[in-house]
Amino acid sequence: MNITSSHIEEHNKKAVEDHNDAFDALTHQLHKQNIDIDSLIGQAGAFQVAIPSWALGAGGTRFGRFAMGGEPRSLEEKIKDVGLLHALNHSSGAISLHIPWDIPKDSGAVKELADKYNLVFDAVNSNTFQDQKGQKHSYKFGSLSHTKQEVREQAIEHNIEVIRYGKELGSKALTVWLADGSSFPGQQNFSKALQNTRESLGSIYKALPQDWQMLIEYKPYEPNFYSMVIPDWGTSFLLANKLGERAKTLVDLGHHLPNTNIEQIVAILLMEGKLGGFHFNDSKYGDDDLTTGSLKPYQLFLIFNELIGGTSNPEQLRNHIAWMIDASHNVKDPLEDLLQSVEAILQAYVKALLIDRDKLQAVREDNDPAGAQEILQSAFQTDVRPLLTEARIRHQAAANPVQLYRELNVRKQLINERGTESMATGL
Amino acid sequence: MNITSSHIEEHNKKAVEDHNDAFDALTHQLHKQNIDIDSLIGQAGAFQVAIPSWALGAGGTRFGRFAMGGEPRSLEEKIKDVGLLHALNHSSGAISLHIPWDIPKDSGAVKELADKYNLVFDAVNSNTFQDQKGQKHSYKFGSLSHTKQEVREQAIEHNIEVIRYGKELGSKALTVWLADGSSFPGQQNFSKALQNTRESLGSIYKALPQDWQMLIEYKPYEPNFYSMVIPDWGTSFLLANKLGERAKTLVDLGHHLPNTNIEQIVAILLMEGKLGGFHFNDSKYGDDDLTTGSLKPYQLFLIFNELIGGTSNPEQLRNHIAWMIDASHNVKDPLEDLLQSVEAILQAYVKALLIDRDKLQAVREDNDPAGAQEILQSAFQTDVRPLLTEARIRHQAAANPVQLYRELNVRKQLINERGTESMATGL
Amino acid sequence: MNITSSHIEEHNKKAVEDHNDAFDALTHQLHKQNIDIDSLIGQAGAFQVAIPSWALGAGGTRFGRFAMGGEPRSLEEKIKDVGLLHALNHSSGAISLHIPWDIPKDSGAVKELADKYNLVFDAVNSNTFQDQKGQKHSYKFGSLSHTKQEVREQAIEHNIEVIRYGKELGSKALTVWLADGSSFPGQQNFSKALQNTRESLGSIYKALPQDWQMLIEYKPYEPNFYSMVIPDWGTSFLLANKLGERAKTLVDLGHHLPNTNIEQIVAILLMEGKLGGFHFNDSKYGDDDLTTGSLKPYQLFLIFNELIGGTSNPEQLRNHIAWMIDASHNVKDPLEDLLQSVEAILQAYVKALLIDRDKLQAVREDNDPAGAQEILQSAFQTDVRPLLTEARIRHQAAANPVQLYRELNVRKQLINERGTESMATGL
Amino acid sequence: MNITSSHIEEHNKKAVEDHNDAFDALTHQLHKQNIDIDSLIGQAGAFQVAIPSWALGAGGTRFGRFAMGGEPRSLEEKIKDVGLLHALNHSSGAISLHIPWDIPKDSGAVKELADKYNLVFDAVNSNTFQDQKGQKHSYKFGSLSHTKQEVREQAIEHNIEVIRYGKELGSKALTVWLADGSSFPGQQNFSKALQNTRESLGSIYKALPQDWQMLIEYKPYEPNFYSMVIPDWGTSFLLANKLGERAKTLVDLGHHLPNTNIEQIVAILLMEGKLGGFHFNDSKYGDDDLTTGSLKPYQLFLIFNELIGGTSNPEQLRNHIAWMIDASHNVKDPLEDLLQSVEAILQAYVKALLIDRDKLQAVREDNDPAGAQEILQSAFQTDVRPLLTEARIRHQAAANPVQLYRELNVRKQLINERGTESMATGL
Repeated sequence: MNITSSHIEEHNKKAVEDHNDAFDALTHQLHKQNIDIDSLIGQAGAFQVAIPSWALGAGGTRFGRFAMGGEPRSLEEKIKDVGLLHALNHSSGAISLHIPWDIPKDSGAVKELADKYNLVFDAVNSNTFQDQKGQKHSYKFGSLSHTKQEVREQAIEHNIEVIRYGKELGSKALTVWLADGSSFPGQQNFSKALQNTRESLGSIYKALPQDWQMLIEYKPYEPNFYSMVIPDWGTSFLLANKLGERAKTLVDLGHHLPNTNIEQIVAILLMEGKLGGFHFNDSKYGDDDLTTGSLKPYQLFLIFNELIGGTSNPEQLRNHIAWMIDASHNVKDPLEDLLQSVEAILQAYVKALLIDRDKLQAVREDNDPAGAQEILQSAFQTDVRPLLTEARIRHQAAANPVQLYRELNVRKQLINERGTESMATGL
Repeated sequence: MNITSSHIEEHNKKAVEDHNDAFDALTHQLHKQNIDIDSLIGQAGAFQVAIPSWALGAGGTRFGRFAMGGEPRSLEEKIKDVGLLHALNHSSGAISLHIPWDIPKDSGAVKELADKYNLVFDAVNSNTFQDQKGQKHSYKFGSLSHTKQEVREQAIEHNIEVIRYGKELGSKALTVWLADGSSFPGQQNFSKALQNTRESLGSIYKALPQDWQMLIEYKPYEPNFYSMVIPDWGTSFLLANKLGERAKTLVDLGHHLPNTNIEQIVAILLMEGKLGGFHFNDSKYGDDDLTTGSLKPYQLFLIFNELIGGTSNPEQLRNHIAWMIDASHNVKDPLEDLLQSVEAILQAYVKALLIDRDKLQAVREDNDPAGAQEILQSAFQTDVRPLLTEARIRHQAAANPVQLYRELNVRKQLINERGTESMATGL
Repeated sequence: MNITSSHIEEHNKKAVEDHNDAFDALTHQLHKQNIDIDSLIGQAGAFQVAIPSWALGAGGTRFGRFAMGGEPRSLEEKIKDVGLLHALNHSSGAISLHIPWDIPKDSGAVKELADKYNLVFDAVNSNTFQDQKGQKHSYKFGSLSHTKQEVREQAIEHNIEVIRYGKELGSKALTVWLADGSSFPGQQNFSKALQNTRESLGSIYKALPQDWQMLIEYKPYEPNFYSMVIPDWGTSFLLANKLGERAKTLVDLGHHLPNTNIEQIVAILLMEGKLGGFHFNDSKYGDDDLTTGSLKPYQLFLIFNELIGGTSNPEQLRNHIAWMIDASHNVKDPLEDLLQSVEAILQAYVKALLIDRDKLQAVREDNDPAGAQEILQSAFQTDVRPLLTEARIRHQAAANPVQLYRELNVRKQLINERGTESMATGL
Repeated sequence: MNITSSHIEEHNKKAVEDHNDAFDALTHQLHKQNIDIDSLIGQAGAFQVAIPSWALGAGGTRFGRFAMGGEPRSLEEKIKDVGLLHALNHSSGAISLHIPWDIPKDSGAVKELADKYNLVFDAVNSNTFQDQKGQKHSYKFGSLSHTKQEVREQAIEHNIEVIRYGKELGSKALTVWLADGSSFPGQQNFSKALQNTRESLGSIYKALPQDWQMLIEYKPYEPNFYSMVIPDWGTSFLLANKLGERAKTLVDLGHHLPNTNIEQIVAILLMEGKLGGFHFNDSKYGDDDLTTGSLKPYQLFLIFNELIGGTSNPEQLRNHIAWMIDASHNVKDPLEDLLQSVEAILQAYVKALLIDRDKLQAVREDNDPAGAQEILQSAFQTDVRPLLTEARIRHQAAANPVQLYRELNVRKQLINERGTESMATGL
């Protein structure tokens, strides 16, 4: 199933009148605030969020998984699904691969296919949290931090292999998420485990191409339930500092203890030049991996407020940080879910761009929290949907991606093509 | 300091042109969705949120308190402050008194003054969490739940006295918040303490006028740090059921453990006919008592979604539940803070009214969570500020209350009148 | 693999000298406190904790599962494993079955086998959180709360079928844990879902034999991540009250929001006659399902303090509440894990029995929290291990169950019998 | 009121028989494990925990404070109270001063008084979270992080003044706890605030004597409720690294988000040579400042497990880390509370010393979490009270400090001396 330009055109033709009304009204309103809407549209249109190859099928929990039908059965079908998203919203022009689930057998062909859909390859992800068939040593008790050298070496080798695949496809970053940790007090020597991790990462870092970054993810718990070797930003930051300039911290929104002020972490990491990437999702309890913005849209806006306030210009922001979604789709169609996530990210981004930064700076100097709230709320309350629609229309994408997806019965067609029993590799 | 109609008119005159533009655009947009904006404006204008008499001065923490200046020195000045808010926003037409901080010495005069500002008296609040000078028995170890009968009786008597004051002023509800609990394991016999509480509340309930309600607040911790006698909605609900029809649960947004789904509690209580009132505020960590909507505006919207979905009509919603703010103003001017809170409440209310309930019902029947999200987001993303401004203008209140408050230098004038050292009773 | 009496005797012979020393010292010490150690030993020996049939293999998370080897391949082998535990510790004399994972094909033979190991059948558990092969309607969007009547009916029928199996085996309780809920705001009509649940439970309740109990479990999140239909004790209690006397609340220690005071919930439920059963485990973050007592042994002790304080006598406590373990074994050998859990439960139980209840009552009346702490600590600090060892020895169980399990290389033998690839049904 | 040696002797005489029994039994038991009890007693006796001068009166919350009577009215009386504790338990031989609450007017006399009670002066604490009378600039919106240079300079000057007082008394460390932060989104520029803090700390660091340490405390919230400038160990660590070798992190047990693994933080900081000090207390919800060990004694034990495992020898541990209590006494007599806290700390310390470190290392290498749990539990379950009693008796302190305190009616005598209305400066 492909989304063709005539699908888009037909859909947009029907939408254009209502859209123009709304867009004119917004233009008028922003104009009065001396905001250049065309510049905003340009920035919105240029923002690209990578789609993870492991999140195109139904997700599950330890209690079970409910199949969805039409799930991609191969890397090629995953690329097609991301292409489909990108055709609809023009903002999903990258794919983030997970090895070994998505090993490209023929890199040339894979790149060509991606090219066809205007997709590039974002950060590649290693996996040492599961054992693969035929694997010599088990990761049951860790990988890069393992007590045994041979296990650590196997995990290092795997990461270097992932870099190799990434190089073939044009990726520029390796994301390392470690499930390593312990589930019981006493089980692990915390400092030795961290020391081992640091040395293992050092070996991988040595194999990192000069124009690559290593993104070190942190997570407080799950799948280990007493400790994780890299539980928080502080530990990731400590490691990134010891490793070198190209090692940075990756922030997954769901990887925090209750009530963490994530936007402050973002600001500190930016200030220290160590913010390398994002995994977007939303959550209420733990690493729930829900649709970005579905629960805490204001938090997302505050994060973008820090991102914009902490970088010198929009291009730097867009290009020097890896933007990825990392979610799990237990009850929604993954493609609809991803469309909604990207939309929420762009809304937060554009609303944060609306913040009057000079005024904000002034009230901060003045210690005027009520004034600061007025400024933030003024941006957040603005309905920026017409602006995002306009950006899509200008890029020949769909005025309303979810609606068109449904009108075209995409899922039904995918089921026809791939069957109801297909099951994508992933989580 | 009074806000006069000429203050308002002058302010509105300047605002009207921009407002009309924005309002017309919103009207146009809602019209296309077949939404009757005048009905919404009517509902918004009719919604009144009570202001607590204890939150008109600077708040503090156990670490200290920073004075603000111009704080009300008497019940009369508190009423004036609420009158000032109501003049600005037309949505703060009620005051909730706290006894013994605000004992009306001359009820007639107090009512007359409130009348002058178009204020009514909402729920009255008892205080058994502090000892008053000359008090016979201390509440250090509890009040209605105390191990000693004489202490319980003193606390019961105090609550009945509060009802008496409330009757004189026209209140129709008693709010009971108990700080009772324990700070250490073993300190308290949980079941005896609850049994004592139930009996004490029973005695107060007997003294409750037939047209009154008793609102039972719950809180998981603070000022006791191991257990509270009424820690959660379940315990409040249990007590309310045992007491009788006029006993209901009061939900304070800040009185929940991390990650609680408050909107679901609201739905269950509504379904059982036991939702009696609200204390609005916002929080990130505990009972932070911050400006309503300043941190989790989407949660507030979801709560109003339940309120509207769970009641048969707007009038029932407005009149049968006690709407109050309960916040503490440590770093903001309390009056600005309260204006911002009321605005956020009204935004959430009106956005929730925009939800297409028939469509929502349909996608729920269909188990379509992505569809449900589209519907909620469509309402939430709508910029309803022009609608609220219009409601204010139609009621001769200020187009932009915070802005006018600042233009008129209200705080400065209050300081001139009351001095920098005045300190309101309260928290 | 069976544990024979000669295994036990040989092990105990080696242990007896050291044990007698320690036991004499403890006896001496307790004697000085006027505590009858023989009565305690009797109570400890009589306390039985049911082992769940679903927790005898390696557990897993959504990220994966690491096989362990020697896992039971059938209900019969599960019974043998529990028999093995019971032979070692004499405190695991019951098994709690999960349908459809453990459907007894020949109830008579199954009972006979259990008899052989001195095991009885505790509460039976239904499963509507997974779809079974060939199942007509999916539980993806709920079961007893589902929007569609036909799905609810299928789930009701399943629960009634579970009761039938339970009756054949001599169970006296049905435990209902519902995964029903929603993962996104707006997805579910909270009150309708609860109303449906209540009606469905009502139909099951009608099918409940007169001498049975229905145990209603609650859980705040997972596998649904926005709301659960029965999120907290308050909702379970509400349902149990509406259903009738034989409906009660089941407390799973891991099913609470952060910082919940579980012991207070236990006290309230006991007071109201609605505490029906326990699922023991321990956790640091969420429903981590770790070994009971491995993280918060003092909390476990405080829970037993409430249990003992809230029931009239030890027999009532032991017999009228269903005691089960519910844990998941991701990194430990499940049998070792279960032995450690039972030991921790018994330690907490016996320590709580040591509390001087008259003194505790006196300091509580006196509002003396430091005094209460002295009393609790005096019991908790006591090393009761010799007492538990003595109870085991008197019942021909192992002085040190974990040690004997290891000495006998039980796991290795199970692997020899069942292979490394065997995988128990369960979580 | 003084505790005399005859008080002690008389008390111990009565206790000695029972104690000897228990101590002999423990000696016997440890002997069989090849543990040298005399070495343990030596270590227990050498461990000293500083008492904070601000925690000798009744604490309070923002809701109020209940007086206790007999509170120290001056620095001299505070020293006497700590002397009294030290006389009772021989483990409270240090006092940690808070400036400006406890400015020594005559340092010589103050030192002499302390000497008399065998007390030394531990870390001194600055206070920029409250405004003092006559203070030029307010700390309402921060101190070392403030937007205005003049406020920062005032706060720097205050810290340097605190160092001066500390030098006079023989302190060797300055503890900096900053209440700085923001209560609302947008209020503060996170990176500027942190940058300001770093520069301010740099100025103070320059004034630090060569043999001093600067201890940087972190806290996630309260009294600011949106962000704190130093919210977590990562930020404190970042600052300490930038400042220099003598800047270290101070861990207050109550200053963490829910579910934080504190023992892991301790291990990481130790490994990096940046663990400078401890503030002991316990908590269930937030910074509850309850008696150490009253809620989570096992966590305390796990922390000491890391401390002992992460340092080369006991002396290093005792001498290179600042051990202080930081608690608030809302419902208990502060002196009893502090005695209980010190006892719990020593219990955790000695139990952690009992851990068989070689075995632990072996099971860790072996990835045997059940084995690790057996080892930790074996230490934790041991009743070490006789050992601590023995240590006290050997140092002419009370066999049972709390009991003797009560027998001597110390509080009553302090009330007689100081009155019921005396109120100690502090929190």
